[in-house]
Amino acid sequence: MTTTLENELAAILGPGGLVTDPNEIAPHTKDWRGRYNGVARCLVRPCSTAEVSATVKACINHGVPIVPQGGNTGVCGGAIPDASGRSVVVNLARMNRVRTVDPVANTLTTEAGATLVEVRQKATDAGRLFPLDLGSEGSCQIGGNIASNAGGTTVLRYGNMRELVLGLEAVLPDGRVFSGLRSLRKDNTGYDLRQLFIGSEGTLGIVTAAVLKLFPQPRSSATAFVALAECRAAITLLARLRETCGDRLTAIELMSKRQLDAVLLHVERTRKPLAMTAPWYVLVELTDTATDVDWPEHLATVLERARADSIVVDAAVAASESQAHDFWRLRHTVSEANVRTGRVVSHDTAVPIAAIAEFIARTETELVSALPEAALHYVGHVGDGNVHAVVVLPPDRYAAPLAFEDAARRANEVVHRLAASLGGCIGAEHGVGQSLRDQLPRFKDPIDLDLMRGLKRLLDPNNLMNPGKVVG
Amino acid sequence: MTTTLENELAAILGPGGLVTDPNEIAPHTKDWRGRYNGVARCLVRPCSTAEVSATVKACINHGVPIVPQGGNTGVCGGAIPDASGRSVVVNLARMNRVRTVDPVANTLTTEAGATLVEVRQKATDAGRLFPLDLGSEGSCQIGGNIASNAGGTTVLRYGNMRELVLGLEAVLPDGRVFSGLRSLRKDNTGYDLRQLFIGSEGTLGIVTAAVLKLFPQPRSSATAFVALAECRAAITLLARLRETCGDRLTAIELMSKRQLDAVLLHVERTRKPLAMTAPWYVLVELTDTATDVDWPEHLATVLERARADSIVVDAAVAASESQAHDFWRLRHTVSEANVRTGRVVSHDTAVPIAAIAEFIARTETELVSALPEAALHYVGHVGDGNVHAVVVLPPDRYAAPLAFEDAARRANEVVHRLAASLGGCIGAEHGVGQSLRDQLPRFKDPIDLDLMRGLKRLLDPNNLMNPGKVVG
Repeated sequence: MTTTLENELAAILGPGGLVTDPNEIAPHTKDWRGRYNGVARCLVRPCSTAEVSATVKACINHGVPIVPQGGNTGVCGGAIPDASGRSVVVNLARMNRVRTVDPVANTLTTEAGATLVEVRQKATDAGRLFPLDLGSEGSCQIGGNIASNAGGTTVLRYGNMRELVLGLEAVLPDGRVFSGLRSLRKDNTGYDLRQLFIGSEGTLGIVTAAVLKLFPQPRSSATAFVALAECRAAITLLARLRETCGDRLTAIELMSKRQLDAVLLHVERTRKPLAMTAPWYVLVELTDTATDVDWPEHLATVLERARADSIVVDAAVAASESQAHDFWRLRHTVSEANVRTGRVVSHDTAVPIAAIAEFIARTETELVSALPEAALHYVGHVGDGNVHAVVVLPPDRYAAPLAFEDAARRANEVVHRLAASLGGCIGAEHGVGQSLRDQLPRFKDPIDLDLMRGLKRLLDPNNLMNPGKVVG
Repeated sequence: MTTTLENELAAILGPGGLVTDPNEIAPHTKDWRGRYNGVARCLVRPCSTAEVSATVKACINHGVPIVPQGGNTGVCGGAIPDASGRSVVVNLARMNRVRTVDPVANTLTTEAGATLVEVRQKATDAGRLFPLDLGSEGSCQIGGNIASNAGGTTVLRYGNMRELVLGLEAVLPDGRVFSGLRSLRKDNTGYDLRQLFIGSEGTLGIVTAAVLKLFPQPRSSATAFVALAECRAAITLLARLRETCGDRLTAIELMSKRQLDAVLLHVERTRKPLAMTAPWYVLVELTDTATDVDWPEHLATVLERARADSIVVDAAVAASESQAHDFWRLRHTVSEANVRTGRVVSHDTAVPIAAIAEFIARTETELVSALPEAALHYVGHVGDGNVHAVVVLPPDRYAAPLAFEDAARRANEVVHRLAASLGGCIGAEHGVGQSLRDQLPRFKDPIDLDLMRGLKRLLDPNNLMNPGKVVG
């Protein structure tokens, strides 16, 4: 039986399509942070939707689980097989062609394996913007972005990946192809089946291609680094900025002083953005197509008024593109800095925007008491209420896996409980994968879980499509 | 058995909650256009989600079908019971409270029975915008807008209703309550169950409340009426406007000369917007929060350049709010004008934006040949590829229902076939309801229909929740 499936896959996929060498498979069975380590029976690298479909059918016939995989940049283990060694990893990297860019319809059609950076570049080449902005853009793939409903720094203005997908194609858990690769902005002919595949982390099918929304390419921008006396002020500033700057407010990113200090200490080519030191900072960006307004000056005026009204304590508007780049580098290198600071327990909670300050205050108090030796860094997206509480543990004391796992459990307990108590969620933009799966029954309504399991059973009655992820 | 259900409903709903008088029920069993006429066993008017839930449970126990109903402004018969007289109509009009407006989080929480106009007004009162813009705003209800995934004139900028819903609450076909009334901008803890209820026209549950996204309130705008030598120029103009005006382009509405002539002839207080006559017109609107730019002048410059480049032949930018209002009146009174012109067969197709001109040319040729005595009016949303081909039949010759139905069938056949052949859909913003249900098997992929039926069976195994709508 074993030989038969591999033979079938080799025939379906042709040369280079089937990988059985454990050394070649190894990088695909663990995540980049080193938290998940699985074993795969083999890895396949299909070149077409037909090959994905045939692969799925072969696996189903043999009762073999399938793990879809994009750029493997996730942090929740959603693309990592379990330890049984039974699964076939279906890696989409060879389906990486951006098929068309239509600047009239403002759409881009791409295969699932194209990287985000390439999709963004192809849009830019056509004078358009694809707005999804993630630190992992060089490696992450569009299929994974869709499967995980990726967020990032521009959600405030452009929405999550869900809002950026006009059409998609997916191979169902029974191998049939859902052909929804349409570019229509309005289509109300029945249930919106696309939504089943967006954010379901490969548990209801394998996304193979998509039609994405493009936007006008901004031609002017303004970037500022702003110091705040308290994190509550970030919420007031958000309201002020939306009122005065409207939809051209593209990002408002929050960082605690300790987080910024860690970046300045551990990341080369960084420097203090402001002369003044403050407990909280936000990075603000406006973008616009109109070049007849001096947006940096506009932003400076708004921030000066916010200073006069005691909302902000200091602010610097970037005087050049290079200075704006330096500001953004402070934000984009946060993960790098944190990993260099110690052993990291990260969280991905969202709370209602008005509750951000309370969430931070309460987690801080409880975490200091639960893990007094940890450093707490906060970084987040103010406009989405998505605050990452990053618990950094002294590396020597938490070198042992058991000690680390125990600390992580204690930190999770505090952060998840407080997020939920404030009407928030425990997984905002990174998904569930393996890491939050067993937490869901505690934090989700039983009716939600029942509906989720019903959907899973409906589409994947054999439980062979990315089993053990998202739903238990 | 019959008496028992009514007794149970009376007990659940209290005084005024159960309506059994046929005269009082009558307005709720037919649509405003007079195309659908059903019979209901009774009508209930719940005041709370608990009452809706108990009503559904009682009906299920008795095996009685349920027809959810909002403002009854639909055109596809989605809220009208069938002729059997077996159904209970659940009208949400008494659940009409806008619960909270949060200008910090930019959210509005409302019960399903609130009218669109009231929701918009409450947002405005708080200095915010709820952007959904429909001609029926005075009567249509938020629950119906969600159930039908409403579109309208601002989709280009703000998306369909689906993109405007942050959270929702719904009573499931088994009477349980899905409690998704959250305000989070990011939540990836499992499948996005909200999506099941948006656009499924009450066949998977009854929407009882929602949290909606609010936007910054524009404080400046520019409105222009533009004449075009050919409809293809509307697409070029769209690209030019998005490039030069970015996301502040809020609407670009297309009208054929005959459509405008019908409005000018049949609607009081209208007048020619331009001295020049042309075969096609578009109404353009920009809105922005920034008041430091003269947007009318900005738009005038863009349009002047478009005239120099032979994209437009003439244009008038409104010099006052009252003139802008007059321009919009020409667009908003289209349905009124068409009904006064003759017997109307309307269509709700969308095609890829680049195919708009071809779609119009081909439908025109075929319709003229199929129904030479009809007048053809075109009106639509350029940015969404959503073109309504309106076939106006001479009223005397088509007074008889049979003659009218036959003509409608012939017109539908042409318009639907051509939309599908160009990669479009037969129902863009009005939904399926009863009117397109039997067309779906011809135009949808069998796999889509199979998934839709599976979802329907999963949530409503007894087929009692708005049966006979959307899925056959």
